[in-house]
Amino acid sequence: MTLPSLRLKANADRRLRAGHLWVYSNEVDTAVTPLNAIPAGAQAVLEAAGGRPLGIVGVSPNNLICARLLSRDLKHSLDKSLLVHRIKVALSLRERLFDQPCYRLVYGDSDLLPGLVVDRFHDILVVQIASATMEQHRDAVLEALVQVLKPRGVLWKNDSSARDAEGLERYVDTAFGVVPEWVALEENGVKFEAPVMQGQKTGWFYDHRMNRARLAPYVKGKRVLDLFSYIGGWGVQAAAFGATEVMCVDASAFALDGVERNATLNGVAERLVSVEGDVFEAIKELKAAEERFDVVIADPPAFIKRKKDLKNGEAAYRRLNEQAMRLLSKDGILVSASCSMHLPEDDLQNILLSSARHLDRNIQLLERGAQGPDHPVHPAIPETRYIKSITCRLLPNS
Amino acid sequence: MTLPSLRLKANADRRLRAGHLWVYSNEVDTAVTPLNAIPAGAQAVLEAAGGRPLGIVGVSPNNLICARLLSRDLKHSLDKSLLVHRIKVALSLRERLFDQPCYRLVYGDSDLLPGLVVDRFHDILVVQIASATMEQHRDAVLEALVQVLKPRGVLWKNDSSARDAEGLERYVDTAFGVVPEWVALEENGVKFEAPVMQGQKTGWFYDHRMNRARLAPYVKGKRVLDLFSYIGGWGVQAAAFGATEVMCVDASAFALDGVERNATLNGVAERLVSVEGDVFEAIKELKAAEERFDVVIADPPAFIKRKKDLKNGEAAYRRLNEQAMRLLSKDGILVSASCSMHLPEDDLQNILLSSARHLDRNIQLLERGAQGPDHPVHPAIPETRYIKSITCRLLPNS
Repeated sequence: MTLPSLRLKANADRRLRAGHLWVYSNEVDTAVTPLNAIPAGAQAVLEAAGGRPLGIVGVSPNNLICARLLSRDLKHSLDKSLLVHRIKVALSLRERLFDQPCYRLVYGDSDLLPGLVVDRFHDILVVQIASATMEQHRDAVLEALVQVLKPRGVLWKNDSSARDAEGLERYVDTAFGVVPEWVALEENGVKFEAPVMQGQKTGWFYDHRMNRARLAPYVKGKRVLDLFSYIGGWGVQAAAFGATEVMCVDASAFALDGVERNATLNGVAERLVSVEGDVFEAIKELKAAEERFDVVIADPPAFIKRKKDLKNGEAAYRRLNEQAMRLLSKDGILVSASCSMHLPEDDLQNILLSSARHLDRNIQLLERGAQGPDHPVHPAIPETRYIKSITCRLLPNS
Repeated sequence: MTLPSLRLKANADRRLRAGHLWVYSNEVDTAVTPLNAIPAGAQAVLEAAGGRPLGIVGVSPNNLICARLLSRDLKHSLDKSLLVHRIKVALSLRERLFDQPCYRLVYGDSDLLPGLVVDRFHDILVVQIASATMEQHRDAVLEALVQVLKPRGVLWKNDSSARDAEGLERYVDTAFGVVPEWVALEENGVKFEAPVMQGQKTGWFYDHRMNRARLAPYVKGKRVLDLFSYIGGWGVQAAAFGATEVMCVDASAFALDGVERNATLNGVAERLVSVEGDVFEAIKELKAAEERFDVVIADPPAFIKRKKDLKNGEAAYRRLNEQAMRLLSKDGILVSASCSMHLPEDDLQNILLSSARHLDRNIQLLERGAQGPDHPVHPAIPETRYIKSITCRLLPNS
């Protein structure tokens, strides 16, 4: 098989040699290798300015990130065989880490499978494809997954906005076998069911697993508020870890049905109430009713989706965290999370500090959490690191 | 009681209002309140330039950090009553977090007790005083600790270099009751004995507790190398968590006696070997002998003690981590720790990336650890955050 070439401008190879996997369109020497001569989704040999080959890339000629490194070894282009190999390497890590087959099995670039995400729920796989190259290899992806994992069902959950920039349609479709609407999983010893077809992203957020595990010592015997609860990932675990009372707040009735379902599944429904409504409105009402909680969890959707949202997004994080602090009882714990890749951890820390000072409280930062090890960070690609969770203690100023 | 005043220059109050607790000597309006008029260790009312009181500080007139905020409330100067209150507030957090009374009970500024560190080993307390003000209140500190905790013994482990800048003598002395040479503790369900009089710092490093707990899924059934083992905090826990073989390397024969003692205590001595010698030399010899390990733990002493050591220190971290990677088996795990406050986490990450690239390996960052919650971070004081631990996976370049 002969692949077309993609030639970089002078010095544009440095970042890739240092470990990065992406090529930006302004780094391509289009005089030598016009980008529009390569069809979307095709593979190419990436070359430094002098012609030295750097590896094989998948090309998205119309995207700002116009190519992603698939392999530094020219012998290995993307095919079923490479997919099987990479999936096995990814699987061996997860099998070492987790008792139950419930985890993010493939995390894109970090597992050297750019554009591919696979979440595993026992014998059901939910797959997200976000690049033209992976989409072209859809059949090979499915064959490789079926060969390695022998699943009962595989779902294409190909409805993310990232597909638009790749010129790909959005769709949700059963790829193989049978996929039920609600799919069972276990996290930190607690049972859940996730709506893989109708839910957010793949239906479940495995990324906060370790941060939720760390709830245990804080919530036992305590009253807990879970803001932006979705289907109860935090709240139901808090109840299962021994919270005396948990209130879950979310704007979505569908999500709160999931909370009830998951609470019942773990026999904690009588210790859990759910409140449907805008979270900021709910906070105001709880404040007016002089409700107080020992632990408040604030894990909102990304307030900063793009860099241009930074200022407004930071303001939203500030408002949320300060309002959440107002609902804490005297020696209260706030678990403040963010999945905004554009919000650095230090900014979140500063928001917590200034909110506490504004309320004339002392604050201690107790724990910092990140995404779990089934979402490995690629150290050259900051975008692969996005989850932050800071657990802090608020004390009266004395 | 009337306290002397300490007047700040214009705007020098901003950082303190924003949450910080320290005053630098160049921030004092010495024309109004000469620093040398206040005796070392005395308390004073800190005032903004306009005269508005900000709180009560302990003064160290000859130190660059010439005052530390003890309380923002003018009614609360440092005395036994305030010490009892603050110790109880610190204790209530630790009792919430840990099953066993083995933890850092007081962590200086973060617990609003600047200059005071207390490590608890069941009913033995090891105390470090690092400020003239705390030293002046030594008797009250002891009385407060005895009142709140009813210990069997209390040790002054007042031998840190931080005392020099405060003009304090260094000494180690039993303050109360009986303190044995080796003191029992438990961490993550594993038993240890620590040499509180002759060991490093307080004899034990509780700060890495959570990072050691996270060894479990990685070491089970594996061969583990623990570099700079000290008395086996990592290595013995790795063995207790199911490692088939652990090698501990340390330059100190005394520390390795501790490793043996702790291995025996947990019935894992037959799975653990200790090697005395310079760690870098030992790595060379292991490499020459073609030894390989599934997991290597590199938790060196601080290579960067002061800012001026940054360049040499970074080079040492780079050398250590790259050499450690060379000893990994094919799908190996490196736990790379640093207790250098001056080495940012991102620098350690970059060192790991460039080392891996240099060896032509792929690297995945799986976990990032920080100091445990018994070492709370004061969000306004970066110096209170110092522990980093990055767990990464090294794979062949494919």
